[in-house]
Amino acid sequence: MPFVRIDAIRADPERLDALGRAVHDAMVETVGIPSDDLFQVLTSHDGTRSVMRYGAFPGLRRDDDAVFVAITLRSGRTPEVKKALYRRIAELAHAYAGTEPRNVLVSLTENESIDWSFGLGVAHYVP
Amino acid sequence: MPFVRIDAIRADPERLDALGRAVHDAMVETVGIPSDDLFQVLTSHDGTRSVMRYGAFPGLRRDDDAVFVAITLRSGRTPEVKKALYRRIAELAHAYAGTEPRNVLVSLTENESIDWSFGLGVAHYVP
Amino acid sequence: MPFVRIDAIRADPERLDALGRAVHDAMVETVGIPSDDLFQVLTSHDGTRSVMRYGAFPGLRRDDDAVFVAITLRSGRTPEVKKALYRRIAELAHAYAGTEPRNVLVSLTENESIDWSFGLGVAHYVP
Repeated sequence: MPFVRIDAIRADPERLDALGRAVHDAMVETVGIPSDDLFQVLTSHDGTRSVMRYGAFPGLRRDDDAVFVAITLRSGRTPEVKKALYRRIAELAHAYAGTEPRNVLVSLTENESIDWSFGLGVAHYVP
Repeated sequence: MPFVRIDAIRADPERLDALGRAVHDAMVETVGIPSDDLFQVLTSHDGTRSVMRYGAFPGLRRDDDAVFVAITLRSGRTPEVKKALYRRIAELAHAYAGTEPRNVLVSLTENESIDWSFGLGVAHYVP
Repeated sequence: MPFVRIDAIRADPERLDALGRAVHDAMVETVGIPSDDLFQVLTSHDGTRSVMRYGAFPGLRRDDDAVFVAITLRSGRTPEVKKALYRRIAELAHAYAGTEPRNVLVSLTENESIDWSFGLGVAHYVP
């Protein structure tokens, strides 16, 4: 169910893949999604055709290893689960891709069960 | 009002166009939006600069014809309307672009009337 | 906190930069975010690898200077603040990038404090 967009700067396919695996493994471990519940769009920005811009809020020294992770998922996860997710994404982004935790932004957007069709034109969570 | 992002893999402009028309015609037919209420971003991912990753959840055999459709729209559509939308997107993606229904993921994110400005710096739904 | 995606058509880096500054300055002025609270992804669409499609809803003559601005932010902004934001984005997009106000679409998607981690794996708004 989670639909994930990951944006990075001048990342080669190996780095994109490592970031994608980091986010996905973190979601499987902390949110408890099935391991085949994987829907990601990963984009490398070259600074010409597309650009990422970032500031230092809230007092974090980012650089061009910055990664933006935007996750759309069903509502209902507790604050504790969300905090565990952030922690694990940061850990695994570092372990898999060498990305410093200060460079990893995560934002969540929630929707409801009826808001998903995984294929076949069917609303799988609301039969 | 709906703002739609469509992501596909190594799609040429004709395929992107067909997918865009499929989603838009389905929205006009089922959600009842005006035919000129069209705001889409369609992206073809080459697997190098940008990548789509997918699993088999919930038991669907996807391949590189996979299409991710993410729609932002105002709240208030009934479950029946959403189900009709999913069904029609799958039908028209097949009819227009030859995409198998098993390959079409759709997710919806809702916002409110005040959350839209179509131009001129005006909140059109909340004058 | 706001996470912003800006999409434009065949925009060079200078135009992308001007549009990014327009949206950010408008948010600082009207929403009251800190000036270093900047997280943007700006994409220029070439019409081949990626495409923007638009109609005339609700009676606005758009052209290929069309800009789509999608902002994810915490809930709680009043209708007045949102209206001021739309107005100021349109003004500054014109001032900085020469974009006609009729060409500037803005949509907002809200989430909550717990839905943000700015880095270090921490939920900064909910310690």
